[in-house]
Parts: sequence; C-alpha cells; structure tokens
Amino acid sequence: MEVIQTVAELRSKLNERKKHYTNSQASNYNSGVGFVPTMGFLHAGHASLLQQARQDCDIVVLSIFVNPLQFGPKEDFERYPRDPERDLALARQAEVDYVFMPETAEMYPEPIKTMIKVSDLTDKLDGASRPGHFDGVATVVAKLLHIVEPDRVYFGLKDAQQVVVIQRMVKDLHMRTVVVPCSIVREADGLAMSSRNVYLSAEERKQSLVLSQALNQVSGWLEASGEIKALEQQLTAYIQTAALAEIDYVKALSYPSLLEIAHIKDVKAGERLIVALAVKFGRTRLIDNNLLDVN
Amino acid sequence: MEVIQTVAELRSKLNERKKHYTNSQASNYNSGVGFVPTMGFLHAGHASLLQQARQDCDIVVLSIFVNPLQFGPKEDFERYPRDPERDLALARQAEVDYVFMPETAEMYPEPIKTMIKVSDLTDKLDGASRPGHFDGVATVVAKLLHIVEPDRVYFGLKDAQQVVVIQRMVKDLHMRTVVVPCSIVREADGLAMSSRNVYLSAEERKQSLVLSQALNQVSGWLEASGEIKALEQQLTAYIQTAALAEIDYVKALSYPSLLEIAHIKDVKAGERLIVALAVKFGRTRLIDNNLLDVN
Repeated sequence: MEVIQTVAELRSKLNERKKHYTNSQASNYNSGVGFVPTMGFLHAGHASLLQQARQDCDIVVLSIFVNPLQFGPKEDFERYPRDPERDLALARQAEVDYVFMPETAEMYPEPIKTMIKVSDLTDKLDGASRPGHFDGVATVVAKLLHIVEPDRVYFGLKDAQQVVVIQRMVKDLHMRTVVVPCSIVREADGLAMSSRNVYLSAEERKQSLVLSQALNQVSGWLEASGEIKALEQQLTAYIQTAALAEIDYVKALSYPSLLEIAHIKDVKAGERLIVALAVKFGRTRLIDNNLLDVN
Repeated sequence: MEVIQTVAELRSKLNERKKHYTNSQASNYNSGVGFVPTMGFLHAGHASLLQQARQDCDIVVLSIFVNPLQFGPKEDFERYPRDPERDLALARQAEVDYVFMPETAEMYPEPIKTMIKVSDLTDKLDGASRPGHFDGVATVVAKLLHIVEPDRVYFGLKDAQQVVVIQRMVKDLHMRTVVVPCSIVREADGLAMSSRNVYLSAEERKQSLVLSQALNQVSGWLEASGEIKALEQQLTAYIQTAALAEIDYVKALSYPSLLEIAHIKDVKAGERLIVALAVKFGRTRLIDNNLLDVN
C-alpha cells in the first residue's frame, strides 16, 4: 500500500499500474480501478465499500480528504474528527493499493471559480438544510474522479441523496465511471455508522437509537393506510419520545427522483420509497434512511 | 475517416485505437488524442485547429454539435448555419480520424440537471451580454471532454473569453486534458473568420471591416497615453464611423484574469492586454479581439 499526497504522483503511479493491466493477457481492465472517496475517520461502513471495491477491481484507491467546500460556515469543518494513523491501518487491512491524502492546498491551489450544481435533487432533504452542501460535494467528487479516473466509484447509501446527486452528475456529464451504491452498515444496536457518532455523549448515543428503531417500523406503519403524511407524523411522534432529539426533517419521497408523493401507490414503477431523516442530538446532526421496494 | 453519431460507438472506437498506440513500441501516446469541438459550418479557422491537432496527435477527433444549452432564448439557435456535407469534406481534407456528430437527444437524453458554472470570468464581455452562455459552453465542453477523453483540446482565440473559461474549468476540476489556444484566422481583408459571417449582407460585410481595422490600430493608440478609457473611446469612435455598426461592448482588460485596469502599466507580469469587442451589424453579432504583450 502506498500513501500519496500529490495529484501528479497519484496519476503517474496509476498510469503505470493501468499499463500493466492493459498489456497483460490476463487483464480484466474493464473493472480496473475501484475508488472509494472518503473524509477519513473510517469505520466499518467505509470498510464495506473498500471490501466491495477489492472484490470488483484490479486496483483499489482510497481518498481521505476533509473537503472544506461542502461545509457551511457554521458547520463542523474545523472539528470534523481526524485520525490518519488509524485510517491507514484500516486501509492496509482492506488491501487498498493507494491512499490519496492530499493537503487542502493540493486540491485547491487557488480559490476555486468552477462549481458543479445539480438542480432539483439538491433543494430538499439535506440540501434544504445545508445550502451549497451538494455543490461542494459534486464539485470535489468531480475533481477526484478526474484525478483517479476510476472504472467504479463506491458510495454508502447512508448519504442516499449524495448517491442520487452523484449518479445524476455522472450521467448528465457523460463521466465514464460506474457509481456503485452500497448498503448502510450499522452498529450492533442499529445506529447507522458515521464518523460523527464519536461526537455523541453517552446519553445522546443511547437516545440516538430511536432513529433506526423508527425507520424499522416504516413497513409496518405503511401497511395501515399508505398515506405519506400519516407515516411522517408517526415517525416524528416516535422520534420525539427521545427527549434530546431535535428533528431537522423526517421525509418520505420517491427514490431516486426525490419527488413528493401523497401515497405509496404514487411511487412509479422502477422507483422506490426513501424514508429519510436528519435529527440533532446536542450539537451532533445524524442522518439515516430506509429505502423500500413498494411496487 | 469515420463519422460517428453515438457516444457508445465513439468510446469503443477510441478505446481500440488507444490500445493500439499503448501497446505498440512506437507509441507517443502522451499526445495521443487531439480534439477539436465545434458547432460545424466549418471555415479556415476550424481548419487551422484541425491542422494543429493533426501535427500534435496520433488520433484527431472533430465534434460537430450545435449546443442548444449555450444559446439564449432570443438568440440564433434555430437559424445557426448548418452544412454537414461541406463540413465532412473539410474534415476529410484535414485528415480527421473521427467526426462525432451526435443528435441533440444523444447529448441530452433527458433534461439536464447538472450545470458547470465558472464565476467571475463569465460575468463580463460576452458573459454580460449573453447570460448563461458560458454555463452552457462549460457544461457541454465538460461532457465532450468526458466522452472523448482527449490529451489535447483545441480552441480558437476569437472566442478568447471561452478559452479562459475552459482553461479555468480544466484547472479547477483537475481535468487531464491540455487546452491549446490557437490564433485567430482572418479573411484576406481582415474580418475574423466566423460561421456567422454568412448572415451578413453585402453592405454589412463591407462595413464589418471596421472591427479588424480598429483593433489593428490599438498598439499605435496605446503609445499616446496608455490610458484604457481613452483607448476604449478611440475604438468606439472609430467603429461608429460605420453607419450600420451597433456596439454591444468595446473593452480592454488584463488577460487571462479579465480584470479591469486603468492603464496598460497595470497589466501584471505574466499577463497580457485583451482588447475585445462585440458589434452588431443588422441581426448579426460579431466578436473580435486583439491580444497584446504589453510588458
């Protein structure tokens, strides 16, 4: 495993490796480079992405970069948790080939003037609560995709809206990579894995279980009437039983179109239902979701 | 020469060709693919781009696509001149390998949600007169760059602001291609080559000479005081001697930063002075410019 800090070195290393696979008779270069972009402070959710990439691809690249562009001015960019030592140990165990860990100045050598904006999909859910967030995500992912040029890129479905936004960007801009969405990985008690879980106090951690518990009951609640408003109200009431829970949004939409619907039977063929939520416990904002096949 | 209409076919053909160059000992693949994106109705200016690409690269790709995204609602998208037969003859003569001529539905299979916006550089000159124009240009060029994945991409300096915008996008987004700006090609009498010149009536065509004549005198005029305001006034007065000329803008800025300056001695080291203009003759809007080394 090699740890690389500059764009130029990563490109030159990847070019060499790609040539090797292209020239060898045994090449399966069509799934040559698998890429897992992260902000570090890796957990079992990231490990599952790396494992999938390792299974699919000749070369696995992990990037660790806390991207300032996707944090709002009042958000947690400065205090976002970092632990490069532990990250590298996890990467080694996952048999990553290259870890790309650029400094901010390497990714943004001068103030960036070019932004990628994906409309419609970004003005709801997390996009509504975090203005500009998905512009920052789309832009840095585009940069990383241009640097790594992966055949496949892996994202966790905990950030389901992020997956939709990136898939749409890749399709609209004719980028060559294949976006591979991977299932949410949870703690034994149900809390969705997140680098931000480390912020939680013991009491907040305990009460945060209400999120996965609420999402687990969605199928059951839907059987009653199938009304989306009623479902959202039930979820809200359930989450409010946790005294420390401060709801940002609880929302059910069609997926991946992210369109408002009144009833589960409004979910069009080929689409699913996403029940997504963002809830603060103290200063810590957690997101989670449940993606359901409903037709 | 092959004429290709779909993204999938172009990619598969280019992949084959690239493999050939990668595997052969004699490969000079680092300048493997040269790309000239155009809107067709080709003239000697486009031919000069193709000639440069042919000199530099193993494989030359020309695209012909009138991009609806970069035309305003009141602009000339519908009546933009088209002549595929003549374009293909010119391409054949220029020894182009692949001509990519997609239908609009191939480039925009559904309404696009993803836009690339380059700030600052796009809010002046043509960007001020044509709101959204450079978003449309940047977005379609990004799409084409993702489809063709060229080592070098060629643009004419008649659209000098376009060159700056694309260079900035490529740099900001870490795109791998090298942007090669090429000199303006002019008719024997000085008029800058443009597909839109065909719109001009005989009288408009005659009077349009005032543009290149004005730009030719910039060096002389600058020797007097070096004041930018005075220069712009002289240019304006000169152009207004043509009765049919309706000035949109006449502007001198530092290049490529496109910053306002008061005096030529304000042009920073490493920068040049661009004197750019847009002038309408009847319904036809012409642009031209003169790029000067001033320090």
